[in-house]
Amino acid sequence: MRNKNNDGCRDLSLRQTARFLKKHDNYIILTHASPDGDTLGSAFALYYGLKEIGKVACVICPDVIPEKYNYFARPTDHVQRNDATVIAVDVADKRLLGGLQDDFGDIVDLNIDHHISNVRFAKNLYLDADAAATAESMYELLSVMKVNINDVTAKALYTGIATDTGCFKYSNVTAKTHIITSQLYEYNINAPEINRIMFDTKSRKLLELERMVLDASEFHFDGRCILLPVTAEMQEKTGCSGTELEGIAVISRSVEGVVAGVTIKQTDDSEFKISLRTYPPLDASEICKKIGGGGHKGAAGASLTGNLDEVKAKVLGAVEEVMEEAYAGSGTRK
Amino acid sequence: MRNKNNDGCRDLSLRQTARFLKKHDNYIILTHASPDGDTLGSAFALYYGLKEIGKVACVICPDVIPEKYNYFARPTDHVQRNDATVIAVDVADKRLLGGLQDDFGDIVDLNIDHHISNVRFAKNLYLDADAAATAESMYELLSVMKVNINDVTAKALYTGIATDTGCFKYSNVTAKTHIITSQLYEYNINAPEINRIMFDTKSRKLLELERMVLDASEFHFDGRCILLPVTAEMQEKTGCSGTELEGIAVISRSVEGVVAGVTIKQTDDSEFKISLRTYPPLDASEICKKIGGGGHKGAAGASLTGNLDEVKAKVLGAVEEVMEEAYAGSGTRK
Repeated sequence: MRNKNNDGCRDLSLRQTARFLKKHDNYIILTHASPDGDTLGSAFALYYGLKEIGKVACVICPDVIPEKYNYFARPTDHVQRNDATVIAVDVADKRLLGGLQDDFGDIVDLNIDHHISNVRFAKNLYLDADAAATAESMYELLSVMKVNINDVTAKALYTGIATDTGCFKYSNVTAKTHIITSQLYEYNINAPEINRIMFDTKSRKLLELERMVLDASEFHFDGRCILLPVTAEMQEKTGCSGTELEGIAVISRSVEGVVAGVTIKQTDDSEFKISLRTYPPLDASEICKKIGGGGHKGAAGASLTGNLDEVKAKVLGAVEEVMEEAYAGSGTRK
Repeated sequence: MRNKNNDGCRDLSLRQTARFLKKHDNYIILTHASPDGDTLGSAFALYYGLKEIGKVACVICPDVIPEKYNYFARPTDHVQRNDATVIAVDVADKRLLGGLQDDFGDIVDLNIDHHISNVRFAKNLYLDADAAATAESMYELLSVMKVNINDVTAKALYTGIATDTGCFKYSNVTAKTHIITSQLYEYNINAPEINRIMFDTKSRKLLELERMVLDASEFHFDGRCILLPVTAEMQEKTGCSGTELEGIAVISRSVEGVVAGVTIKQTDDSEFKISLRTYPPLDASEICKKIGGGGHKGAAGASLTGNLDEVKAKVLGAVEEVMEEAYAGSGTRK
């Protein structure tokens, strides 16, 4: 159906992907590292789908699967690596396989993904970049395969869709996202409970970190900029690290009147990682470019060295410069 | 289609409601007091729908319409009260008409609502208690009326549905909710922007209040109970009051491991309002009953007098009692 590209990666249509999955018997399904609800939900939905048609399959995750996904993530089969067909789900780049990259990075037979940035590392690729989540494609795939979907499969798929859309909030949501979700509601998915686990549960240590960060927060430029410092001491005291810190960036982009939300995360004695979220007329990438970083219009980042006060001054200087240009001429906002 | 009840209120079917709306010419559309996205979204969607078929209509809200709804709430027609047909939307009880109750409470010709608790105060009632939002019913009504839906109407309807479902998170969501929403995506609704306004915008004063409340927060019973005091001083210092304080209750029910989230809001010198959110095996109404209050299984409340320490002790005593019963026998949780 689709033409072969000029690289070693063959594009498959949905039907070709379905046929591919029916053809083989033993599958290893890989998720990306730091697994989220979409890679896990898609992987387990595929696993349950393959089991329904008598295949042997296992799900391998480069990292420990967080306990909160236990409502759909369960022990899978044991599969010999040698005679297995290797499938990656929601993995845009083999580097995202983390610790599994060496073993599997170059032998992925089929990749099922929705990232427009997919680097085509697998032998075969089903890519629907219009899908809000890989789980959306997975639902369509299981439907085309006429595989029975059970309640647990539906929970896994719902989790994937809800994760990647911020519970239907983001700009990747389409009419199709809602149609597929309406079909998942035909199963016993207990969506409110999934959403509570995914969106309304905050660890006590993150709450404690938020308290400290808010205590140290600063407003600048008539409330148009909020600055949230996450020092090494705060991270140590609360035990919050890694992806847990992402909760702080959420604050930076949700305060009324703020057009520049700056999170300054200390990564070493005199090293800081800047995360910037902006709203029009500000351009985050423009601001971060001034301090040696880069990114997108609404979200960008940079790395700076110095002490916290020096780093604050550098970031605020860049914000001020771009703010002055952006508001030049609009006397009321200045 | 439906039988007349034995009260003065006649139940209408969707088709009868559509016919009713086509029959008259001048409409006053009423929302409930402290207006939210559903009452406003439904009222304005109805307004735009009636305009499409040549009617004269105005929307009257008992309170000032918050500015954030300006993307769909616009000035409406001027309608003489005497020759107008009065419609209430999303109003379960005439008391919810607030300042409009005296003028309109007893002369509502048609009520369009989705609250199971509707007290049937209007002459005619279209009630779909299975609808997640009145806006869901409004979409169906406009569809049955074959009224043209434009982008602004679709924005209003989306706002209503998103509001009452917590952006598709709550237990009132059904397959139909998602199907209707998928149809609203055919219009230019810019859902991400609506969701940002509705769900991801926090006032600076609420952020400041949150900071104070977190500073004063306490964990009890091995982290299973969080206590959030909102003193009069905090409310005064930040200028937060009324519905703005509801943001605090959200914290009380979202901390990992917490099964009893207590918000203690000072309402006068020695008067406090308790809001309690619980998760199984705790029953919020059971706890609040012990301190003279009541409510539902997952959310209940009470009023207490005394100083803050006394009130805290009373609430914690009630929580402890019910907790002991609930965990009796389950040695691992105790």
